[in-house]
Amino acid sequence: MPSREGELRSLLAVRSDPPFDLAAVDPRATPGLPPSVLLDGDPKGWSRSAVAAIGGSLAESQNKLYASAKVAADPRRVLLVLQAMDCGGKDGTIRTVAGALNPQGLRVVAFGPPTDVERRHHFLWRVAQAVPPAGAIGVFNRSHYEDVLAARVRGLVPERTWQRRYDEINEFEAGLVSGGVTLIKVMLHISADEQRERLLARLDDPAKRWKFDPADVDERARWADYQAAYADALARCSTPAAPWYVVPADRKWYRNWAVATLTRETLDGMALAYPSVQFDVPEQRRRLAEADETGAVPG
Amino acid sequence: MPSREGELRSLLAVRSDPPFDLAAVDPRATPGLPPSVLLDGDPKGWSRSAVAAIGGSLAESQNKLYASAKVAADPRRVLLVLQAMDCGGKDGTIRTVAGALNPQGLRVVAFGPPTDVERRHHFLWRVAQAVPPAGAIGVFNRSHYEDVLAARVRGLVPERTWQRRYDEINEFEAGLVSGGVTLIKVMLHISADEQRERLLARLDDPAKRWKFDPADVDERARWADYQAAYADALARCSTPAAPWYVVPADRKWYRNWAVATLTRETLDGMALAYPSVQFDVPEQRRRLAEADETGAVPG
Repeated sequence: MPSREGELRSLLAVRSDPPFDLAAVDPRATPGLPPSVLLDGDPKGWSRSAVAAIGGSLAESQNKLYASAKVAADPRRVLLVLQAMDCGGKDGTIRTVAGALNPQGLRVVAFGPPTDVERRHHFLWRVAQAVPPAGAIGVFNRSHYEDVLAARVRGLVPERTWQRRYDEINEFEAGLVSGGVTLIKVMLHISADEQRERLLARLDDPAKRWKFDPADVDERARWADYQAAYADALARCSTPAAPWYVVPADRKWYRNWAVATLTRETLDGMALAYPSVQFDVPEQRRRLAEADETGAVPG
Repeated sequence: MPSREGELRSLLAVRSDPPFDLAAVDPRATPGLPPSVLLDGDPKGWSRSAVAAIGGSLAESQNKLYASAKVAADPRRVLLVLQAMDCGGKDGTIRTVAGALNPQGLRVVAFGPPTDVERRHHFLWRVAQAVPPAGAIGVFNRSHYEDVLAARVRGLVPERTWQRRYDEINEFEAGLVSGGVTLIKVMLHISADEQRERLLARLDDPAKRWKFDPADVDERARWADYQAAYADALARCSTPAAPWYVVPADRKWYRNWAVATLTRETLDGMALAYPSVQFDVPEQRRRLAEADETGAVPG
């Protein structure tokens, strides 16, 4: 989906010219934000209202997408791919943005470390099975990109294997696009400082402590390696048909608004509509009126 | 889950003594509703607020359920089964009640007519695959009960086949319960008149017209047969371990509140809690504080 001038998509998309530089993206920035928001002094409240309003628009588009598949065999579907460092806000984004959608017609899939069975298959095998069906909106919490991120940084496969994967991913995604999938690939970009604050907050809150894993602290030692791996993945797999967007994510309220807006722009760009029906409306109205109290249709 | 005195579960559960009589349930009734609600004159507004408040409680319980499975290998999960005549409000209930939950950890599955592959299997084959994993909340939009409802009324299988299915369903569900599944089986009970009004409303609204199927009018001719099939299914498959609830559903605002309340009571009855963690919190806090700007941990 090519983005249009003036859209947030156009501001946040990863491009190759000039060469993409992840380190130049400030995780506290707020690109595309209406300038009045920061001046008004209540960006969180503004974001909540804005996301709620966008959510209504998303839910209506979702309904049209679902209807088109159901009665008009429209093959289209949407897949939001979320990647981030630990504490980057994937869960919160799903709760807020996907939470505004109708749970029917929504498929959230979280990808953890591959199981023994998955490990015996090609790395895209489990991903292909999780692609949303026609009419649905899918969300990937982590994705096949972990196979060029964690797998590379932690040395889980030889370099020649992960080097090959960028092309494999591009070919796989091109196939998805041909099959009617509109991809929205979003990296939630946080700083190392913000991650530390969020890990500390997890330790402090009994409702969040279970999400803390001591191994996450060890992973922080590989921060620079992960940033380099992200930079490569974003640069090598941001294609015109399936661009990557980098969302500065140190500010949760901006992140929620930005992901909701990217999703709305993408759905708007699909020009969805309710399908026309194949029956005669007045005739059906007459048939219903003729039915008696118990529902029996005469004749 | 045995229900407690004073709970809505206790009011709406299908019991065998005295023998269950579906025809005696008024689809416009509002059992368990706080008496002030109808007097106050804004039941819809009241229901919206009440469901929003209940939704917060559901989301917190869901979070505890998810956390317990994730870090403490708790096998528990919840499955809400929704059955109703066409236009009975399954979709609206899912949008409203399941919509209050975190989409991550929620699995909504709609059962249509079985595919060719599914038809070559036992009728419970596809159902077993759709059972939510530990920690999740599943919602079935229609279910294995169609195999003793539509299959019976439309004569899709011989009587000896569907007669056998009640016991098979009870055994299957008993197995689910043993495996950690808490079932909430809800029939949304509407009148034939209300169905006609809703079908007419579908025809009138361009955003809903696609949901209309002329075959639904033909199905109305079998209303009495469906009611009889429902009455049998509810009576024969309401067990102490997996009771059926009948929710009067002509009033959408009551229906939403009732299903939300049944779900809340069930989750509350599970005594969910955040799991305790297996690491030393002060030590982890110290490790995080030692990490430098780039996230590198000394030593």
